[in-house]
Amino acid sequence: MFTFEIHKKDESTKARLGQMTTAHGVVDTPAFMPVATQATVKSLSPKEIEDIGFQMVISNAYHLYLRPGHKTVEKLGGLHKFMSWNNSITTDSGGYQVLSLSKTRKIKDDGILFRSHLDGSEHMFTPEKCIEIQESLGVDIMMCLDECPPFPSTKEYMRKSIDLTTRWAKLCRSSKKHTDNALFGIVQGGVYKDLRVQSANDLIDIGFEGYAVGGLGIGEDPEQTYETTENTLSVLPVDKPRYLMGLGKPEDIVTAVSMGVDLFDCVIPTRNARNGTLFTSRGKLVIKNAQFAEDERPIDEGCECYTCRTFSRAYLRHLYIAKETLVLRLLTIHNLYFYAELMKGIRSSILSGDFPNYLSRVQSLGGEKEN
Amino acid sequence: MFTFEIHKKDESTKARLGQMTTAHGVVDTPAFMPVATQATVKSLSPKEIEDIGFQMVISNAYHLYLRPGHKTVEKLGGLHKFMSWNNSITTDSGGYQVLSLSKTRKIKDDGILFRSHLDGSEHMFTPEKCIEIQESLGVDIMMCLDECPPFPSTKEYMRKSIDLTTRWAKLCRSSKKHTDNALFGIVQGGVYKDLRVQSANDLIDIGFEGYAVGGLGIGEDPEQTYETTENTLSVLPVDKPRYLMGLGKPEDIVTAVSMGVDLFDCVIPTRNARNGTLFTSRGKLVIKNAQFAEDERPIDEGCECYTCRTFSRAYLRHLYIAKETLVLRLLTIHNLYFYAELMKGIRSSILSGDFPNYLSRVQSLGGEKEN
Repeated sequence: MFTFEIHKKDESTKARLGQMTTAHGVVDTPAFMPVATQATVKSLSPKEIEDIGFQMVISNAYHLYLRPGHKTVEKLGGLHKFMSWNNSITTDSGGYQVLSLSKTRKIKDDGILFRSHLDGSEHMFTPEKCIEIQESLGVDIMMCLDECPPFPSTKEYMRKSIDLTTRWAKLCRSSKKHTDNALFGIVQGGVYKDLRVQSANDLIDIGFEGYAVGGLGIGEDPEQTYETTENTLSVLPVDKPRYLMGLGKPEDIVTAVSMGVDLFDCVIPTRNARNGTLFTSRGKLVIKNAQFAEDERPIDEGCECYTCRTFSRAYLRHLYIAKETLVLRLLTIHNLYFYAELMKGIRSSILSGDFPNYLSRVQSLGGEKEN
Repeated sequence: MFTFEIHKKDESTKARLGQMTTAHGVVDTPAFMPVATQATVKSLSPKEIEDIGFQMVISNAYHLYLRPGHKTVEKLGGLHKFMSWNNSITTDSGGYQVLSLSKTRKIKDDGILFRSHLDGSEHMFTPEKCIEIQESLGVDIMMCLDECPPFPSTKEYMRKSIDLTTRWAKLCRSSKKHTDNALFGIVQGGVYKDLRVQSANDLIDIGFEGYAVGGLGIGEDPEQTYETTENTLSVLPVDKPRYLMGLGKPEDIVTAVSMGVDLFDCVIPTRNARNGTLFTSRGKLVIKNAQFAEDERPIDEGCECYTCRTFSRAYLRHLYIAKETLVLRLLTIHNLYFYAELMKGIRSSILSGDFPNYLSRVQSLGGEKEN
């Protein structure tokens, strides 16, 4: 099953408060999905992800196809059981990863021929294969196979590319067998407004349970990112969930929510945590800095996460400098908690009518460094 | 405060059931201390260590002196607060680590001159310094600075070495200032029975709250390890805790308990976990093996640890092969749970009078590989 309901619309922006319901439960939107590429949110247990407050994670069909293999996961009862996560799961199709990770790949009419980044073995990703993999994994939201051309690409190339993405989307749609999951189409078209509109309309004609905006945050200016997102959303049906793929600085998220985006995923909170960069209510904090060597305070004095309730900056810095793996977990917990609170703040402010203020508060934090 | 009480003695072996009480609580003996060298049991949170069932961990004065510095830890409220562990802590003095990790070191009459393994800076460890460090850390059990000569060492060298260790032990004893902690002497003497007896008697004359058997498990035959342990214990006072340093295969632990040892520490459960080698009720299991790729069973079907209650061998193997850090934690939880259960089994079998049977059951598991 898959349903999407909008409970409230903000009056002065296009932000919407809603709920997706999948076979594995409810997902309150706007929602953020922590990235679980290889069937694990790096360093966290599924219980921790749930306790922090997330209802859905995103894994990756390309990675799981190569290792441990989708058929293996299927034999073991599907991805939910495999990773012991009983809430909702989205998988990215892997089109983006095939193109970015495989050194030798060839885009053909019927799919992408590539070599594994793990062992160099040759594989072919077709739209049909891509759906087969995601249905074997048994996820709640599947993504269509798409081509995500680099930035910049010529308009001529991009025009051909969206036609290919549309043909693949049709084949994905027609090869979907299961009825208890959703399939989202991915709008491409680079920064060309007319191509975005065309790509969106092509996908709407095919008909999907939700629509994603893909191919952004890959080198274009932030203004282009926002403009393209807005242009694309203006064409998408209001009653379907909209997913902005891969973009996720806090200021990007609130801004995109104000344009009507419902769903996000991004490696920023988890990857930044592993690099020692932390989000706080007063801006970013780099834990390895010498200034924290004897700092008794938690990362963020207002934060209620396990890490902030339990450890000082000085201890976390010590673990980081000493390369103790515990720190990866503790910092990831903090950053994901920050994101969970961000999404809760977005949802409660839409509900209370205070979203425009929340929006400007989060936007004003962007990039600021703590002293 | 530091007290030690023996509640029950096994009738047919020398095993004893007891309790140490420190300023941070009770430690049921025989006890195993997980190793927290750099103020963390690698990959585990303090809550996990407590939940698994441990009442004391062992950290390391040498490591914490070099990084983050004992004065820093003291300023931050001591080691318990620093690592957020409110139960008991022992620190090894660091003599062993100075000798094994520092490339250039010189044993002098008044201490050990060495270069840091981290940055090559020169430092001097004297008995007084060693106590100062451990008192700054604020631990419950401190260890004397000792010389741990390599195996084999000549009897002549060893004779001089135990004299040095005795002189240092006297200086450690006299420089101890705090009254709420304990200081243990470390018996050395290699595999020479008369030197062990002499070293033990020298330390007993000085008087310590407990006595450790050091310098074993460094290359001598297992029979020599056991024989030396037994010879040393026969001299040590019955009413003080006895600590066998660094030795800890399950079969070693039960055997040493049968000789009257009360306290253990060892990197085996945690290090083996990180290398993917797991303890089970049917012997060892190497998680990376291909045979587990589609194995739905937990590591050990009888085990109640979080890892076994939640994940399959297939999933753990996948994480291990994919080098996901979550696996380090999950495997460490399992191995430490196995050790916690081992110690509980030892204690309850001494209480019920069944220890001799328990002893032979654990001894018969030694080294066995699961099919």
